[in-house]
Amino acid sequence: MSRKMRMGMVGGGRGGFIGHVHRMAAALDGEIELVCGAFSSDPKKSKLSGQDFFLPPERSYGSYEEMIKTEKTLPEGERMDFIAIVTPNHLHYGPAKMALQNGFHVVCDKPLAFTMKEAKDLQRIVKRTGLLFALTHNYTGYPMVKQARMMIAKGKIGEVRKVVVEYPQGWLSTKLEDSGQKQASWRTDPKRSGIAGAMGDIGTHAENLAEYITGLQIKRLCADINIMVPGRLLDDDGNVFLEFDNGAKGILFATQIAAGEENNLRIRIYGEKAGLEWAQQSPNSLIVKWLSKPMEIMRTGVGKLYPEAQHATRIPAGHPEGYLEAFANIYRNFALALRAHLAGKKPKALHLDFPSVEDGVRGMRFIEKVIESGKSKQKWMKF
Amino acid sequence: MSRKMRMGMVGGGRGGFIGHVHRMAAALDGEIELVCGAFSSDPKKSKLSGQDFFLPPERSYGSYEEMIKTEKTLPEGERMDFIAIVTPNHLHYGPAKMALQNGFHVVCDKPLAFTMKEAKDLQRIVKRTGLLFALTHNYTGYPMVKQARMMIAKGKIGEVRKVVVEYPQGWLSTKLEDSGQKQASWRTDPKRSGIAGAMGDIGTHAENLAEYITGLQIKRLCADINIMVPGRLLDDDGNVFLEFDNGAKGILFATQIAAGEENNLRIRIYGEKAGLEWAQQSPNSLIVKWLSKPMEIMRTGVGKLYPEAQHATRIPAGHPEGYLEAFANIYRNFALALRAHLAGKKPKALHLDFPSVEDGVRGMRFIEKVIESGKSKQKWMKF
Amino acid sequence: MSRKMRMGMVGGGRGGFIGHVHRMAAALDGEIELVCGAFSSDPKKSKLSGQDFFLPPERSYGSYEEMIKTEKTLPEGERMDFIAIVTPNHLHYGPAKMALQNGFHVVCDKPLAFTMKEAKDLQRIVKRTGLLFALTHNYTGYPMVKQARMMIAKGKIGEVRKVVVEYPQGWLSTKLEDSGQKQASWRTDPKRSGIAGAMGDIGTHAENLAEYITGLQIKRLCADINIMVPGRLLDDDGNVFLEFDNGAKGILFATQIAAGEENNLRIRIYGEKAGLEWAQQSPNSLIVKWLSKPMEIMRTGVGKLYPEAQHATRIPAGHPEGYLEAFANIYRNFALALRAHLAGKKPKALHLDFPSVEDGVRGMRFIEKVIESGKSKQKWMKF
Amino acid sequence: MSRKMRMGMVGGGRGGFIGHVHRMAAALDGEIELVCGAFSSDPKKSKLSGQDFFLPPERSYGSYEEMIKTEKTLPEGERMDFIAIVTPNHLHYGPAKMALQNGFHVVCDKPLAFTMKEAKDLQRIVKRTGLLFALTHNYTGYPMVKQARMMIAKGKIGEVRKVVVEYPQGWLSTKLEDSGQKQASWRTDPKRSGIAGAMGDIGTHAENLAEYITGLQIKRLCADINIMVPGRLLDDDGNVFLEFDNGAKGILFATQIAAGEENNLRIRIYGEKAGLEWAQQSPNSLIVKWLSKPMEIMRTGVGKLYPEAQHATRIPAGHPEGYLEAFANIYRNFALALRAHLAGKKPKALHLDFPSVEDGVRGMRFIEKVIESGKSKQKWMKF
Repeated sequence: MSRKMRMGMVGGGRGGFIGHVHRMAAALDGEIELVCGAFSSDPKKSKLSGQDFFLPPERSYGSYEEMIKTEKTLPEGERMDFIAIVTPNHLHYGPAKMALQNGFHVVCDKPLAFTMKEAKDLQRIVKRTGLLFALTHNYTGYPMVKQARMMIAKGKIGEVRKVVVEYPQGWLSTKLEDSGQKQASWRTDPKRSGIAGAMGDIGTHAENLAEYITGLQIKRLCADINIMVPGRLLDDDGNVFLEFDNGAKGILFATQIAAGEENNLRIRIYGEKAGLEWAQQSPNSLIVKWLSKPMEIMRTGVGKLYPEAQHATRIPAGHPEGYLEAFANIYRNFALALRAHLAGKKPKALHLDFPSVEDGVRGMRFIEKVIESGKSKQKWMKF
Repeated sequence: MSRKMRMGMVGGGRGGFIGHVHRMAAALDGEIELVCGAFSSDPKKSKLSGQDFFLPPERSYGSYEEMIKTEKTLPEGERMDFIAIVTPNHLHYGPAKMALQNGFHVVCDKPLAFTMKEAKDLQRIVKRTGLLFALTHNYTGYPMVKQARMMIAKGKIGEVRKVVVEYPQGWLSTKLEDSGQKQASWRTDPKRSGIAGAMGDIGTHAENLAEYITGLQIKRLCADINIMVPGRLLDDDGNVFLEFDNGAKGILFATQIAAGEENNLRIRIYGEKAGLEWAQQSPNSLIVKWLSKPMEIMRTGVGKLYPEAQHATRIPAGHPEGYLEAFANIYRNFALALRAHLAGKKPKALHLDFPSVEDGVRGMRFIEKVIESGKSKQKWMKF
Repeated sequence: MSRKMRMGMVGGGRGGFIGHVHRMAAALDGEIELVCGAFSSDPKKSKLSGQDFFLPPERSYGSYEEMIKTEKTLPEGERMDFIAIVTPNHLHYGPAKMALQNGFHVVCDKPLAFTMKEAKDLQRIVKRTGLLFALTHNYTGYPMVKQARMMIAKGKIGEVRKVVVEYPQGWLSTKLEDSGQKQASWRTDPKRSGIAGAMGDIGTHAENLAEYITGLQIKRLCADINIMVPGRLLDDDGNVFLEFDNGAKGILFATQIAAGEENNLRIRIYGEKAGLEWAQQSPNSLIVKWLSKPMEIMRTGVGKLYPEAQHATRIPAGHPEGYLEAFANIYRNFALALRAHLAGKKPKALHLDFPSVEDGVRGMRFIEKVIESGKSKQKWMKF
Repeated sequence: MSRKMRMGMVGGGRGGFIGHVHRMAAALDGEIELVCGAFSSDPKKSKLSGQDFFLPPERSYGSYEEMIKTEKTLPEGERMDFIAIVTPNHLHYGPAKMALQNGFHVVCDKPLAFTMKEAKDLQRIVKRTGLLFALTHNYTGYPMVKQARMMIAKGKIGEVRKVVVEYPQGWLSTKLEDSGQKQASWRTDPKRSGIAGAMGDIGTHAENLAEYITGLQIKRLCADINIMVPGRLLDDDGNVFLEFDNGAKGILFATQIAAGEENNLRIRIYGEKAGLEWAQQSPNSLIVKWLSKPMEIMRTGVGKLYPEAQHATRIPAGHPEGYLEAFANIYRNFALALRAHLAGKKPKALHLDFPSVEDGVRGMRFIEKVIESGKSKQKWMKF
């Protein structure tokens, strides 16, 4: 299996943001090559995008259906191994399902799907086919997030008591969707985004991060969901009380009207013995606050970190790794697991450390429940 | 009136924390002198404490009643002008009421009283007597808090949409009260602290800070109140959704089980045009995050700040001022207002910028309402 | 000796900066009272300043000579115990010498004197009289500076190899002295400041801090001394290589033309096992960077600190203490040592932890040597 | 020219650090593909490394000579376009010269060569051949470094007066070379590293950064060069005074014995109107300190930045980009310029923004001069 893993992309043509991110993340480690794509629903645009990426014209397809069908006919040594889905939410289910049904593995952007029904259906198909499926909750790809997760798993901070996870952004402080800006348009449109705006777009990242790091699951929640910019159709702000399965309590907030905030995902977890703090905008540090000794700043590449964190690090201490490297950690693990899978081996646990379809289903349930709770007069709601 | 204002202290004997703070804050600017005290309910201990502070023995009293009665008989040129109450919550009402009824002005630690009834009674007496009353919500004494307040009042960040105010401490992560530690003992004891623990001790500071800076008032709230350390009698953790009178939403949390946190009061306010961020542990900075230009770090003493902020600053930029200086700002303003009052003049608005008995009543209502909401299955509750 | 220590002040009338700082620092802990002053060379101004501080008119003197002579005639229970000298550099020697010769102890602002000759003379008189003398190199009063000093003394970071101490300010980026601004005028005037500008004003603080923390002494230096603002008469910028008596190397720079800097004194010390970092603008933190384990942030009041650091701390962790508190630590120690001295006892070592006349002489030598080296074509010069 | 640019690598086999960095940086943007390599002087190891990178066996060469000769014989549509040299310093000159003489463009790691003579020779060959040559002084690839450079070029901070550039690392605090660690071994070996250790390895980065950002050139310097770890053969610490061609003064220090430091390259530049501060470990922020208004934190992707900074940014604000992205900016610009060059066009100025052979010659002169000055008793030395 001495070759790169071959990726076909759905969506991500010229002008898109997340498609570009997926391509860079997939390319970084030299484990994956982009071999084809259905970059746009407009076949001409798809071709032009394919040119940008130096693809031969015949492998820039006019639709994902065409891509999947045609690639399937190519010889094993040539056809794509997996697809990467980077379309808006309402266009995840179709290509994911068809790819899986035709034997292609899948990397899919989050949230998993447009509806809970779609999500559960994908979960069933993944289970049935035994194919690999990765969901790009990229923030869990950071080394210090993995270090935090391992510290909690190993009991370093004691039983978790309180979680504060927050995701403030400011870019929707004005009614940007009226300007036609591409990112704002579909994210605020119920037909393309689903029942949630901010809670789906970034709230699910916060939820996923909290569960990933703590190893706990949300059991109950109470949400206050708001539209702060007049005329907007979906939530742009939300506050949620959380209760975890071990009894820990938490606060989650996600907002896109926090004027001046960039992409300030941040989490604090307090256990019986210590508190952990991590902020996405300074991702190479993990702050550990102890009960009665000096706080420590753990840093990527410094001292003895857990293998999971080390594996997610490429360069020595003091050489900052960022968003793309964390994103690439999903792709690299996916590629390494896929290589093993294609060779008929069981992938290493270390390589299976990427978000799964199950994480995707939990994310969809989170969306469903916060929106339901937001409309309820009752305080707590079961997750 | 060319003399220092004369202070008598109730509580604050040897070993106490907050009494020492009040004395330093009162002394800093040379406007106030400590002339007498009822430092302990034990007359002997009160005398010994008086010696520590170089008071003549006859002015260390065995009780506040004795102090007020005796001081009242002293000639105007000698007797105390006001009392400072630094006792646990259940011992605020008695000395405050008696002082006011005997013509003495009052500085009182927060929360205002043990019960709402006491609080309202004090409010009435203050109004009736026309005497000065300051409540030491000291965190509003910081220059950059005043700068933030003025920026919002002047419309610099537009209409406020979201407030996040948090007060994590970690010192009650273990059951410290079992060790007999003085501060922990009374704060976790319903007989001395009242119906609330953390929410009264620090939650009220957070509430006061949010209302002071935004100029808004809480209209509704929804609280999740917890006891995280088994066997503790009062809340040590709480999360609150807030709704303000202009429709802005907010989150307040206060916790004393956030392992490793020192005294991390912090507030963020997002308006239509900008976000403000201030943290008590780095009090000389105010971060202003703008919608589409570089964020600014305003610093005590740098550039043109509002007169309210400048008045609260003693030394040039880069010479950090801290907790005691902020606390002293209340005492200095109180002394300057009192000097005017004693001279028969109306104090300047700038000097009346200290927390009032009304702030104290709002704080007591906050305590009452969060505890009530914490027990309710209903989501929102009127303030 | 159950009374406050009595201070007379020389200089520090209305409009001054450092006199105000000394008064606040002396007042903070209730150990010292201001009883008299020669606040200005203009007797009228001195009286008016005395009124500001609520002194009786007869104890606001027209000159330090008058003050020292008159106070000496007062009964022991009333006369001042020590003088605090807060005048420009050229007016330190006179009052210090006369006070000492008349039996009064002295607190003096830095640098010690106008010339090396004066400095050495004061050193002799202090030695001869056995009176207490404190020099207000206030930055060594910070708790975390003391913690750093003790860590090095106890070998925690191994042998010191490299020191980087820097003191950038920006307030003299323009020719402020032309505006008549009081602080700028005398500091840039060779007749009042001496042979050095920035190197005397702030360079000596950096030198003192480096020697205090490391416990080492400068053995050789090489200086590059500059006047960056055209027309200025004294240095406003300087860079110095240092060699310490153990062979460690260092860099010291002090500048007052670092546009936009406030008062950014900062030191880093690298030993064989760890590096220490402290910054005056965030004084409650001490960063410890270890060779192969996570860095630690030591914080005032957190965990087990050395007694020297604890003694210099007034309030619990997370309640920031600043410049005035550090300054007050010199006054408090001076007062406690003086109290013992007056009672005929040997002061505790802990209380003698304040800068001495010897530190002052070293500071004067530093000024002399950096200016000499700055003019030399030779690289290294003996200290 | 619708194809990726083709890279052949010299050095960078298994276990190396910088070769891996070059490969990731070259791959990130999908503009370049690795087509061949002479990864090791041991042909077997070179083949194995080629397998790691999924190269066909016939394009893993046993020496750079073999690679250059063989690739030259391949048809234009297949052969490599340029070589990337990632060997230790003593092995830069040979492959660079031979590649250029055979019509291949070159990307070379820094410092440019082993001796000044080699450097000048390469400069001549580059000039004569007209081929593209990039030196990977990667730190100038960061967007906020480019923003700083443009701000100064546009006069935003006025005339530059003072520069402080520092590069502390701690990884050579012990005699790591004795352990056989690969990176330490060659860097401390005069036969492979040249006349300088730390000053060549990281001092040149600091020098390059200072000249790049300020647009000034060093005119004179005075150096203190040290070996702090006993028995080491090359400098591990150095302090340098700088004088720039406009009269500005500066300090540069580079050290590898700063225990606990990671890779803390940091620069401050003070002009007449403002100061700039940038730190490689927090590369997405540029601090601007103004004379009399609040400091600003410019951030990658926030507000209006100069086109040079925008072009160097891939993803939106708040999505941190790091070391690899900055490194990739050199490769991307090189590839874009090469594409134009191969198409017979003049590359855009924006794409020629990468370090050149001239920068390399200046770096070599810096090494030569600091080492010479370090041995001299004279203070200043012409650059």
